Amino acid sequence: MKNENIKSHTFESISLKYDGKSLFLIDQTKLPHQEVWLDATTPAKTYEYIKSLQVRGAPMIGVAAALSLACYARSGADQTAFVTAAKLLRSSRPTAVNLMHSVDRMLNVAESDYQIVKLQAEAEDIFLQDEMQCAAIAENGLSLIESGDNILTHCNTGALATAGVGTAAGVIRKAWQKALAIHVYVDETRPLLQGARLTSWEFGKLGIPNTLICDNMAGMLMAQGKVQKVIVGSDRIAANGDFANKIGTYSLAVLAAYHKIPFYVAAPMTTVDLACTAGKDIPIEERADEEVLRDWAPKDANVFNPAFDVTPAELVTAWIFDRGVLNLKDIQAGKLKSKFNNLDNRTRK
Amino acid sequence: MKNENIKSHTFESISLKYDGKSLFLIDQTKLPHQEVWLDATTPAKTYEYIKSLQVRGAPMIGVAAALSLACYARSGADQTAFVTAAKLLRSSRPTAVNLMHSVDRMLNVAESDYQIVKLQAEAEDIFLQDEMQCAAIAENGLSLIESGDNILTHCNTGALATAGVGTAAGVIRKAWQKALAIHVYVDETRPLLQGARLTSWEFGKLGIPNTLICDNMAGMLMAQGKVQKVIVGSDRIAANGDFANKIGTYSLAVLAAYHKIPFYVAAPMTTVDLACTAGKDIPIEERADEEVLRDWAPKDANVFNPAFDVTPAELVTAWIFDRGVLNLKDIQAGKLKSKFNNLDNRTRK
Repeated sequence: MKNENIKSHTFESISLKYDGKSLFLIDQTKLPHQEVWLDATTPAKTYEYIKSLQVRGAPMIGVAAALSLACYARSGADQTAFVTAAKLLRSSRPTAVNLMHSVDRMLNVAESDYQIVKLQAEAEDIFLQDEMQCAAIAENGLSLIESGDNILTHCNTGALATAGVGTAAGVIRKAWQKALAIHVYVDETRPLLQGARLTSWEFGKLGIPNTLICDNMAGMLMAQGKVQKVIVGSDRIAANGDFANKIGTYSLAVLAAYHKIPFYVAAPMTTVDLACTAGKDIPIEERADEEVLRDWAPKDANVFNPAFDVTPAELVTAWIFDRGVLNLKDIQAGKLKSKFNNLDNRTRK
Repeated sequence: MKNENIKSHTFESISLKYDGKSLFLIDQTKLPHQEVWLDATTPAKTYEYIKSLQVRGAPMIGVAAALSLACYARSGADQTAFVTAAKLLRSSRPTAVNLMHSVDRMLNVAESDYQIVKLQAEAEDIFLQDEMQCAAIAENGLSLIESGDNILTHCNTGALATAGVGTAAGVIRKAWQKALAIHVYVDETRPLLQGARLTSWEFGKLGIPNTLICDNMAGMLMAQGKVQKVIVGSDRIAANGDFANKIGTYSLAVLAAYHKIPFYVAAPMTTVDLACTAGKDIPIEERADEEVLRDWAPKDANVFNPAFDVTPAELVTAWIFDRGVLNLKDIQAGKLKSKFNNLDNRTRK
């Protein structure tokens, strides 16, 4: 089945290099001090990269999994090996649903007609779709930002986390490109410090004015009137609008509600999981104690380390999707489900 | 004026060793992995230890400053040198008012009658008073704790932070000694991780069941019904009950109010500053960027690093003092001021 003459796209971003035969991903645990590229051509390796968060970001892991599988098919894997690899990849992170959507699309193709060209086209479509969705989210979110806004964000939702400009960070980037005078407060995002290591670095590269804070400083800033908007990404959005995102998001949503600050979630439609009726149905990954303990806490300390939390829809001012901006009334009126029509996005059971 | 025959107390705790001539303090930046003792017999050194947070905890820095000054007098310092050293020490941290109260007591003695015995007696009284205040706070707070409580606390408020059993941690310790089945959630307390490094270690030593979390996990735990009480310490309490404490306290107070969880402040009366009519009058120390940046963020990132925040009285269920437990109505009725009567606690202007 090997075929060196298959035509494919070439993708190159801050975090990903793909040429149809090979896939390289930037090691996000080494940033910002080192730019190390990981060979993700083999799905078994990609699985490890996702587990270890060397590759992360809900949309990005979906895209990376699909492209890795396409490369695997191209390298000569048979259908059985492909399906096994896909199912392994699908299990690498339990909370972000984009991964499951992407792998399921690849599995649907593989199981109906196992051809390299078709698998490659599907994976590339997943990449391009995510890139376009980011652009559409940024465009849709732009109307919500005003000049003079100080925008608080959490975790990393930019070009490292997606195939495009990002979700929450994409909205911010678009506003900056449109010459709105904005400033961003970047939560460092313990325990894995995606804000301190990645978002701060990305905004720095883009020249977007930003200030790094510890997660526990957000409330004080809000009380002082220094935050006008909060925008975050999401790993999974339930049918009722409840959503899972990086741990700490829920606290921010409560703080924003208390201070009457608009709180926005920016995500592609691929983040929606209609099979989850509410946030309680979203599985929350708990991770290793060492992420919290680091080298400073007593080695034998008891630790609780949930990677995500769930924010109820009632605390969200609006959801910024690629297919439009919805508020709670829209979702209660069924608009989330209707926007879902014709979206190739169903999770397999 | 040197006199080797002066009688003095000997104090020895988890954090302090004093014998009238010398003062040693445990280096809190080296805990929990190393127990290093710092020679604090010279006030100029003690000043550095406080600045660098090697010695910390609002009551502890007040006690350490007084004992260091007493040792300085004993070593032969004259009145002028003593006053200069005292004023330097007084400036080492701007937010915690206990330091100013302690140093002012020493200055009052030094300026009225410069005698080693009197200075030593005053410093030792400051230590013993703090120790007794801790015991009284613990006793007063006990009535607020119930068996089965999961208690969330922030920063470090135990034997490292005071001359006695602590403030918030002292209440917890007392409840545990009284065989109440409690469990503590310990906020790691970024940026300097006093919770992860110190509180977790202290509770571990005492055998009090506890779980270390990142600061941004508190909201999720509250939403899940896993927190029944929040107890924190304070660095300064204004006349209207507003109080300053370690950064992140305000966010916890808002989260507790949102989830209808009782929120308590435990502190000695020496933490009260009637000269501050409200929280806005409390100076908030901002510290070095490096505390936030550590070795993981871009070196040139812009940082905001306030060491404390202010929580308005409206968010506090009760203030647990050594002189009794007050609620907001009590404070509005002037009971905070009346409890202050006969307390040698006025800050010099």
